[in-house]
Amino acid sequence: MSTPTTAARPLVDGGVVPPLCTPLTPDRELDVESLERLVAHLLAAGVRGLFVGGSTGETAYLTDELRRRALDVVVGTTAGQVPVLAGIVDMSTPRVVDHARSAAARGADGLVATVPFYSPTHPVEIRRHFRAIRTAVDLPLIGYDIPSAVHTKLDAATVGELAGEGVLDGLKDSSGDLDGLRAVLDLVADVPGFRVFSGSETVADLGLRCGAAGLVPGLGNVDPDGYVRLHRAAAEGDWDAALREQQRLRALFGLIGVAPADRMGRYSSAIGAFKAALVLRGVIRHGTTSLPMVPLDAAEIAAVGDHLSRAGLSLAEG
Amino acid sequence: MSTPTTAARPLVDGGVVPPLCTPLTPDRELDVESLERLVAHLLAAGVRGLFVGGSTGETAYLTDELRRRALDVVVGTTAGQVPVLAGIVDMSTPRVVDHARSAAARGADGLVATVPFYSPTHPVEIRRHFRAIRTAVDLPLIGYDIPSAVHTKLDAATVGELAGEGVLDGLKDSSGDLDGLRAVLDLVADVPGFRVFSGSETVADLGLRCGAAGLVPGLGNVDPDGYVRLHRAAAEGDWDAALREQQRLRALFGLIGVAPADRMGRYSSAIGAFKAALVLRGVIRHGTTSLPMVPLDAAEIAAVGDHLSRAGLSLAEG
Amino acid sequence: MSTPTTAARPLVDGGVVPPLCTPLTPDRELDVESLERLVAHLLAAGVRGLFVGGSTGETAYLTDELRRRALDVVVGTTAGQVPVLAGIVDMSTPRVVDHARSAAARGADGLVATVPFYSPTHPVEIRRHFRAIRTAVDLPLIGYDIPSAVHTKLDAATVGELAGEGVLDGLKDSSGDLDGLRAVLDLVADVPGFRVFSGSETVADLGLRCGAAGLVPGLGNVDPDGYVRLHRAAAEGDWDAALREQQRLRALFGLIGVAPADRMGRYSSAIGAFKAALVLRGVIRHGTTSLPMVPLDAAEIAAVGDHLSRAGLSLAEG
Amino acid sequence: MSTPTTAARPLVDGGVVPPLCTPLTPDRELDVESLERLVAHLLAAGVRGLFVGGSTGETAYLTDELRRRALDVVVGTTAGQVPVLAGIVDMSTPRVVDHARSAAARGADGLVATVPFYSPTHPVEIRRHFRAIRTAVDLPLIGYDIPSAVHTKLDAATVGELAGEGVLDGLKDSSGDLDGLRAVLDLVADVPGFRVFSGSETVADLGLRCGAAGLVPGLGNVDPDGYVRLHRAAAEGDWDAALREQQRLRALFGLIGVAPADRMGRYSSAIGAFKAALVLRGVIRHGTTSLPMVPLDAAEIAAVGDHLSRAGLSLAEG
Repeated sequence: MSTPTTAARPLVDGGVVPPLCTPLTPDRELDVESLERLVAHLLAAGVRGLFVGGSTGETAYLTDELRRRALDVVVGTTAGQVPVLAGIVDMSTPRVVDHARSAAARGADGLVATVPFYSPTHPVEIRRHFRAIRTAVDLPLIGYDIPSAVHTKLDAATVGELAGEGVLDGLKDSSGDLDGLRAVLDLVADVPGFRVFSGSETVADLGLRCGAAGLVPGLGNVDPDGYVRLHRAAAEGDWDAALREQQRLRALFGLIGVAPADRMGRYSSAIGAFKAALVLRGVIRHGTTSLPMVPLDAAEIAAVGDHLSRAGLSLAEG
Repeated sequence: MSTPTTAARPLVDGGVVPPLCTPLTPDRELDVESLERLVAHLLAAGVRGLFVGGSTGETAYLTDELRRRALDVVVGTTAGQVPVLAGIVDMSTPRVVDHARSAAARGADGLVATVPFYSPTHPVEIRRHFRAIRTAVDLPLIGYDIPSAVHTKLDAATVGELAGEGVLDGLKDSSGDLDGLRAVLDLVADVPGFRVFSGSETVADLGLRCGAAGLVPGLGNVDPDGYVRLHRAAAEGDWDAALREQQRLRALFGLIGVAPADRMGRYSSAIGAFKAALVLRGVIRHGTTSLPMVPLDAAEIAAVGDHLSRAGLSLAEG
Repeated sequence: MSTPTTAARPLVDGGVVPPLCTPLTPDRELDVESLERLVAHLLAAGVRGLFVGGSTGETAYLTDELRRRALDVVVGTTAGQVPVLAGIVDMSTPRVVDHARSAAARGADGLVATVPFYSPTHPVEIRRHFRAIRTAVDLPLIGYDIPSAVHTKLDAATVGELAGEGVLDGLKDSSGDLDGLRAVLDLVADVPGFRVFSGSETVADLGLRCGAAGLVPGLGNVDPDGYVRLHRAAAEGDWDAALREQQRLRALFGLIGVAPADRMGRYSSAIGAFKAALVLRGVIRHGTTSLPMVPLDAAEIAAVGDHLSRAGLSLAEG
Repeated sequence: MSTPTTAARPLVDGGVVPPLCTPLTPDRELDVESLERLVAHLLAAGVRGLFVGGSTGETAYLTDELRRRALDVVVGTTAGQVPVLAGIVDMSTPRVVDHARSAAARGADGLVATVPFYSPTHPVEIRRHFRAIRTAVDLPLIGYDIPSAVHTKLDAATVGELAGEGVLDGLKDSSGDLDGLRAVLDLVADVPGFRVFSGSETVADLGLRCGAAGLVPGLGNVDPDGYVRLHRAAAEGDWDAALREQQRLRALFGLIGVAPADRMGRYSSAIGAFKAALVLRGVIRHGTTSLPMVPLDAAEIAAVGDHLSRAGLSLAEG
């Protein structure tokens, strides 16, 4: 069907590839300096790649202009130290291809795409979708399985088939379905260079235990060192150390629940908490989130600080 | 919160406002001539408005450039004969506002927006979303309730509240939930100028019976005369005539199922069938649909023709 | 497959067939006297049948012993004045057949069964289920479509096929899906004696407008006269009178929401409100509901009374 | 609220507790001899308890009489060698309590109950449900989290609260949600004697890795030795051996998919395959399943045999 052009050597062999938050100014413009500092913060922790334009990065909330500027800043700041993956999240093939071309022109090293959403889709159409993206833009392509957002599972059989064709070079699994993760890993075992990444904050160790190569945790913005340690312990076969690190990170992840369910949605609460934590840690300047998300209030921000302290993370002086 | 600027006089008082198909050339560019003919075909039938950028119009599949060009053609061709409503379907407030500004600049008379999707949303955020759109662009704003696409119900309480504030001027109900439709109609009974439109092809008569002012049926592309007759009969209180017309149109609507479920999704089949019918009726030139939809094959197109014949619709000579 | 033994003459030709509440004593035994009075209350209103063992009757909450005793009381009290239908709700064919035999032995005139639930089911298995019930017990069998409870739609194609075979003699549609109701009505148009009943309180008029023969509204316990008037108006073609009655009943149905969502589930609230209304109207003695439902408090019961007053229903002196 | 009567010493400390299949004769009576042989087969493998009346045991399909007889046989055959847990699966508290009393009278050592189903439920009602069961019958009570069947998650907060009260003594987690499993394990860490069991065939090793004490795998009927080895390896900290055993068992579990999706539901296929495997292994006599399940055909049974052979399991001579 398509000609695999990516070699057996994967773009990112494994490790931690955090999905970057997108720092905003109080009037919701890109906060360039904060984004540069976030990149530096992550690189200093030893991450192996950066993922711009994921759900954690409010990609669904960013105008095309903001998406482009954020990618420009990350590509520029990273300067080739690690690969930069660009999320090209949109409803359908033509719109996704537009994002893909834009990201390629801006220097992205790889692309991350979901199945189509909004209009109901179908397994045949999902295959056509990824094939058309891969044909349109010659960059490594990662499938993004996030049924909580797109309401369709990117199933193992589809991933296996597209991996075998050279259409997909990897998978970011944000489904939380470890049985499905194992099914994918079985099917791609013989596909050279294919890499599976777990997008889960709280069962990351289990994903690695199953054979995932790397991690794409939103919480990795807040505590990249923790996930790098977790990954390293797993890579060295020290599963007990990995488990201890995971337990600490699971507790820290409780910060996403600081806002009550009658005040805002869980996504507002989670993104707000990640950004509040980055402010408290001195990495970014503002906790501002996109519209229509609801901002955290002072008590909720204080509760985020408590989570950081309990996890042993230092706060910026202020 | 916001200042209602729309007067008690609604943009479209009622009647049929079809959600236009978007004719494409075989290489998936906009087929301008076909779109002009489609507009003429609909205006000739007595529609009371045109809705560009709905689900039927493949809005989820169109690049921004294609969306803009389609709106330009419809505004230009319509030339003020009836109002043109523009769908501004996207995942979040900032992206929707971008579409709203573009549509306003192109001469749309009103806007149609869904609740946020992709990231999980929340009632408070839905209110913030519509208020921000209404504040950003001073055009009549219609809420678009389509839970099959966005996976969140735009509930009656929210519609009632936003109607009372002057944020929403109407509702396009594509939920199929007639109990919910009644709940909305109760809540907006005292809001001058608020109009409810049913987006259902097969229970349109029931929506009118409940008090909806108008219809936005995708099948109205294929048989606008039928829906205009149905609406007129209802307006005149001739419910038996409305029912007979509805029964004929329900049978015709069976054309959306011409393709088997293992070949393509139901959306591919429906949009493909609408376009095939428009080709067979001599209105547009090509049945091409957007990627990644699967095209109908010859047998399926023939089956569409059979549906048209059984419904008493004339086919183009050829 | 099976031999239709029911003649073309339906068990219940149409009209109102309320799903009886099951009055309980404060210690949750059957309140026989109250049940007898409820039957009398309904018969006096002109109902055309009685349905024992529906969702409104707390059938999911009644032990087999309580189910049997309730049916005995209703059959005895009704004494052949109208047919008595028995719900035989359970998870699978063998369990449903047990209930069917018991109901037949107690004098039920017809049976009402859902699709299998708990274990995931399948269209082929649904057909086998109804055929086996019909073979085991020679009574008219009504399919009960209640996807909110069983999480599987009893789809039109299945109903049509089983109607044609003489397995199903009718349908109780509690899905709220009027498009689906129309699909069923199309398919059974040529099946003599097959009758469709709408289980919806708030779109009952629309169901009749589509061709349903009768109504099975839970709220019919509280205001049977209202539903009998609604049905009669529809039967006489006076759709405006039917609509007015429906509007009054829709408002009354608001009583199911008297309890807040953080205190109890909506089913507790609805059944509690029906029973409270029957107490306030002097029909039954106690508002007790089954475990683990939460009882209404005094303020909630008072709110039920307000709903009754606004609907013009007289309360018992007390 | 309730007085914990169960001591800190758990009924089953851990290990494998298979949910027994229920062997039937060709006319769907209990096949007593086969059930006795199944018990012996499992005890010989070193299981630490037996669970009668789970989903694997077709509990949703068994009449009360059949449930009782199956429990009698298992209690009698086991003769106290290991504890016998009885599933008391039904829709509501009164019905579940009836089953609980029957099981206690028959000698069950513990009870396993789901949240209420059929009628929509609520967190407050779920708490009332388990408390009422525990009060009615003084036996250890295990919560059964199986959202695929009951369509409501038994969430961690509820389990934690009920564990703290002494109402629940354990959890059987058949949700596949390992993040949720971790949340439960955190909350019950200080509750003496509380034990968590994973009901998953394919991520059993991960459940143990998270801290689950034991396993309740349906596939454990077919290959109890495999799960006993898996559990032992995990208990000894030999996670690589556990993983290898899990990989073999995951492949074997593929036998549940021998029947195509257009022939029967996945539950028919799974239960049919387990029973066919037990016949092929010489443990039970008939592969008969309950109505309305569809029987496997010869080719499908042969495919089950292939799965057994590939997994290294010996077949009975025949």
